Amino acid sequence: MTERKLEINPLNTIPIGQIHIRDRFWDRYIHLVKDVLIPYQWDILNDRIEGVETSHCIQNFKIAAGEAEGEFEGAVFQDTDAAKWLEAVAYTLEVWPDKDLERLADETIQLLGKAQCEDGYLNTYFTIKAPSLRWTNLKEGHELYTAGHMIEAAVAYYEATGKKEFLHIMERFADLICRVFGPGEGKCHGYPGHQEIELALIRLYRVTGRKDYLELAKYFIDQRGTGENYFLAEEKNSRYRQIFPEFAGYDTKYSQSHLPVREQKTAEGHAVRAVYMYCAMADLAGLYQDEELLRVCETIWKDMTERRMYITGSIGSSGILERFTTDYDLPNSGNYSETCASIGLALFGKRMAQLTRDASYMDVAERALYNTVLSGIAQDGKSFFYVNPLEVWPDNCMERTSKEHVKPVRQTWFGVACCPPNIARTLASMGQYMYFTDGKALYVNLYISNQTVLELAGEKVSVEMDSDLTNSGRIEIRLGRDEGAEPYSLALRIPNYVKDYKILRDGEAVAAAGSRSVQNEEAQEVRIEKGYLYIEGIREKETELVIEFHVPAEFVRANPRVREDSGKVALVKGPLVYCLEETDNGSNLPAVFADTDQEPVERYEEGLLGGVTVISFKGKRLTEDAWKDGALYAGRKNRFEDAELRAVPYHCWNNRGAGEMLVWMKELL
Amino acid sequence: MTERKLEINPLNTIPIGQIHIRDRFWDRYIHLVKDVLIPYQWDILNDRIEGVETSHCIQNFKIAAGEAEGEFEGAVFQDTDAAKWLEAVAYTLEVWPDKDLERLADETIQLLGKAQCEDGYLNTYFTIKAPSLRWTNLKEGHELYTAGHMIEAAVAYYEATGKKEFLHIMERFADLICRVFGPGEGKCHGYPGHQEIELALIRLYRVTGRKDYLELAKYFIDQRGTGENYFLAEEKNSRYRQIFPEFAGYDTKYSQSHLPVREQKTAEGHAVRAVYMYCAMADLAGLYQDEELLRVCETIWKDMTERRMYITGSIGSSGILERFTTDYDLPNSGNYSETCASIGLALFGKRMAQLTRDASYMDVAERALYNTVLSGIAQDGKSFFYVNPLEVWPDNCMERTSKEHVKPVRQTWFGVACCPPNIARTLASMGQYMYFTDGKALYVNLYISNQTVLELAGEKVSVEMDSDLTNSGRIEIRLGRDEGAEPYSLALRIPNYVKDYKILRDGEAVAAAGSRSVQNEEAQEVRIEKGYLYIEGIREKETELVIEFHVPAEFVRANPRVREDSGKVALVKGPLVYCLEETDNGSNLPAVFADTDQEPVERYEEGLLGGVTVISFKGKRLTEDAWKDGALYAGRKNRFEDAELRAVPYHCWNNRGAGEMLVWMKELL
Repeated sequence: MTERKLEINPLNTIPIGQIHIRDRFWDRYIHLVKDVLIPYQWDILNDRIEGVETSHCIQNFKIAAGEAEGEFEGAVFQDTDAAKWLEAVAYTLEVWPDKDLERLADETIQLLGKAQCEDGYLNTYFTIKAPSLRWTNLKEGHELYTAGHMIEAAVAYYEATGKKEFLHIMERFADLICRVFGPGEGKCHGYPGHQEIELALIRLYRVTGRKDYLELAKYFIDQRGTGENYFLAEEKNSRYRQIFPEFAGYDTKYSQSHLPVREQKTAEGHAVRAVYMYCAMADLAGLYQDEELLRVCETIWKDMTERRMYITGSIGSSGILERFTTDYDLPNSGNYSETCASIGLALFGKRMAQLTRDASYMDVAERALYNTVLSGIAQDGKSFFYVNPLEVWPDNCMERTSKEHVKPVRQTWFGVACCPPNIARTLASMGQYMYFTDGKALYVNLYISNQTVLELAGEKVSVEMDSDLTNSGRIEIRLGRDEGAEPYSLALRIPNYVKDYKILRDGEAVAAAGSRSVQNEEAQEVRIEKGYLYIEGIREKETELVIEFHVPAEFVRANPRVREDSGKVALVKGPLVYCLEETDNGSNLPAVFADTDQEPVERYEEGLLGGVTVISFKGKRLTEDAWKDGALYAGRKNRFEDAELRAVPYHCWNNRGAGEMLVWMKELL
Repeated sequence: MTERKLEINPLNTIPIGQIHIRDRFWDRYIHLVKDVLIPYQWDILNDRIEGVETSHCIQNFKIAAGEAEGEFEGAVFQDTDAAKWLEAVAYTLEVWPDKDLERLADETIQLLGKAQCEDGYLNTYFTIKAPSLRWTNLKEGHELYTAGHMIEAAVAYYEATGKKEFLHIMERFADLICRVFGPGEGKCHGYPGHQEIELALIRLYRVTGRKDYLELAKYFIDQRGTGENYFLAEEKNSRYRQIFPEFAGYDTKYSQSHLPVREQKTAEGHAVRAVYMYCAMADLAGLYQDEELLRVCETIWKDMTERRMYITGSIGSSGILERFTTDYDLPNSGNYSETCASIGLALFGKRMAQLTRDASYMDVAERALYNTVLSGIAQDGKSFFYVNPLEVWPDNCMERTSKEHVKPVRQTWFGVACCPPNIARTLASMGQYMYFTDGKALYVNLYISNQTVLELAGEKVSVEMDSDLTNSGRIEIRLGRDEGAEPYSLALRIPNYVKDYKILRDGEAVAAAGSRSVQNEEAQEVRIEKGYLYIEGIREKETELVIEFHVPAEFVRANPRVREDSGKVALVKGPLVYCLEETDNGSNLPAVFADTDQEPVERYEEGLLGGVTVISFKGKRLTEDAWKDGALYAGRKNRFEDAELRAVPYHCWNNRGAGEMLVWMKELL
């Protein structure tokens, strides 16, 4: 036997408490978490907001804890709202300590503890409503999914505060789950109907060192889709009770249980389920040095991001069941493109970048974060998109039609409230995406202004970044440390949208490139590998880097296999996808044709949408002159008029009232 | 008070038994009815076809008749399959008498009689399964809808055979319905959840002269949508039982009960329900000289056909609930466009033309019949489309996605089998659309080769038409009669797609026109009014007309308000809409751009699809040359290659295996 060299050596993230973001682009969103989202969502969890769908979430815990009387209300996974709130609170406390908020969280955690059953079980739906039906409907019951979010929150809270109460509560539940599930005889050989606990158990393993949690996560992944499908089998059990009638005639692809995970080659089924599972697969590939699993992740990633992803970094083409369809099937106006799915996509991409040191994964993660995740939340933090179409005509987003899932304006809150708290925890933990490190090198992924302190080459290094990525593309990074014994390195992600760039180190050019190929490598230490530009051997106490990314507005096209987009262009600038809004461009946006022979003009507008770079360009618009008689179809020539068009970043659409929106514009050919 | 002149003077149709169609285009479809559809559907109704969803239809009648044991199976409206079969049989017998078929029909009718309850009630679902729930769920129960189809069949069978047994059965049921429903105290003030009985009661009135049937039809129309919505009210009744869970949260627009009928201005809700109702409204407008109702019909017709109709004469833009959406919302690939809705559209258009003598209604009816209705059936008569999209990419017509209703190939039979028997009865009764008469004039609507004898100006007139409308556009009409005492007239519909034309009467030009305005009116008797060209004062024993319609292949465009179609063209020739199929043009049809500056070339191909005129034209096709690296989005230029394209008539798509299909093509601008 030849000895096999283990090559998977994942990079680490930096604790988010060490990263202090102060960024012109991101601040307005990140500050929403503490100032608006957390208090607002707390009020919702406690049913204190008028005109918003009842949550009953905290009340359910009180009933389960014996502190209140009443019936369970809400979805089967209602508990996750509290979990995601606590997780967002944890990240917030890690960055901005706040005694009052911590006290509120502590009290909530105590309530959770009281709602926990003697044997460790914690789920208010089953505890209150159907105690005899525990684990009888893994397909729809969401018990493991809910447990997963609880565990993630507990780990985050422990990492933020050092307090162990919540962690212990969830360890007790995880212990129960380890007793119930697994390969042993007499155990349940099922796996979650909605993946999430897998990645959560891995996080729990990382903070507790408890190998059985890791092994159960691996079991859930390896068991999935093997033999007779578990979900179809459990339906035949006499104790099985259907929860969601729309799941009748279950398609096993929906939950990625149609094939053993290692045989899967395409992104299938419900998009959020899929990406949460892929995250755990990536984690396991690293922890078990499992190259086969890593190859599976790479194959699925390629299918998902090169054939089934929108330019906005969103996934899930089907409005029905929020799922993937087929390669290159990317309709712009009836898609689901759930906010949570883009969050999961970013989480998966981050993990793949950590495993492979390949910056292209972060190109996708960044695209998802800057566009779809931010599109999910209004600039006032009080309304949200679940569905993120690339083309909206408000008039036809009607209830009880094919567009009933598309909302032309953000909604205040939802019965199934997964996205708003998911956005909150993502914004509160943006730090996790920004840097990686292997102890010697600092990998810079996202160019978001921040101040960070971390250890590199055995010494504390301070990082100060000022970034104007979304406008001029200029970024300054100041690095400092006390001693200079051991050199450290920097690995700067060169985003795939950067046309050319120049990097100055203490005033001297160290690298410049056109179209990603390095043309000038005067300094020996500079090399590019898989999208990261490495500057090695940094010994100075103070180093200043100036990065000049050329990120002009650019018309891009889709692969001609994307039937919906052929003959069309989208406008991008750096990580941002742009769109036309009716308020700027009038109605009937699909009648607009962009003139791509003329250069678009950029202008930063301080007063618009909190400050955005607007892109103006020329085009033509089909007129109705020849159709004044109201005819619907006729052998008439097209008549055009000149149009001056204005595009704004996609993520901030629908912050100026309802109206049409369009990403993919027709092109004058 | 000023006296009001009554102006509604509807034209009559000619009994279809007097019209013998022998037409190169239509024969292959019409002969399917007798040779294939009727025997095939009979086998299905009796569950004799392997691999086809069980019908149980005749078995249900046997159980209700006490001739068999068992439970009811099938949909709540399963009886209509037998009704539509009998109706198709009736029309067939009227044209082609057949003793064996008539005997089979008589036996079936006897069975229906035995299944009828003592009080006249006839509906096997409620009789077998829920006798105590009669009339408690008008919204979903389909009792009145089913009765309507039964009545239509009974009327047709009486008209075809002169036999009264079926008619008497249905009169007994109609009498019961008249006792149960109506304005009187103690009667039910409801109306059907699915319209159909209104137009059927009017047909029953026409053959029986029973005014109470007509009055009940009028009651159902006038009562609809008034006061508290009946369907929402009946839900509160303790005897109410929901049948279709998907109707929870009922939208009253779905059944056009959101407003009193006379206040409706737009085509709303489920398309088939809508058009069946409009048919009854048109009938009532004529029978009651109700100008207000006629104006309502005109307004809704305009909305439906000028803002909510596909170029193929189909309606119902939403894949969910088979319904209308909003003006100009006409997506090509996720629409419903049910075959039955186009049948209803043709029925409504025919009635409007009869009422108004305006040929434009027949332009729409013809478009529906030649395209969507025929698309509904395979050329072998054994498989059917319910859904008639204008753009199909088979790969993404997946179960449990937004395209799940779209089938890329025709289906053998359906659980809800409304369309196949509806196509059968329509093909068997094409004669009803072809001619109208007021006793003195013969209105020629459709140019389908036939031999007909009718009475005009008090005398028998024979009509012999040879039509090549769908190819050369040349039509010959030979008229003959014995005496010539009183003159009669002809009213020839000049279709809206005719570019110019020439009409010769016994070798001499009587009319010629460019773009529908008459330029040459040598013969005094010739005038054009509302799309009909009138030739009056025909006294000759024999007259021959030669009509030369110029019907070249033509690129047409949609009103720019149709967002889905801007920048695109469709190809039409005469009444036929054309499409691209993958088998002729390769895959990825949306990457094709038509060059509309070059003339399309027509060629009749005898061996193709039973003989069709193929249209060839030039265009460009986006190539994948620049995308060999598999990138999904990039700032690359478009690259095109020349393409030679071939279009075939839309109605015969998918008769050469599965593949892509496209009606609206991108245009090189």
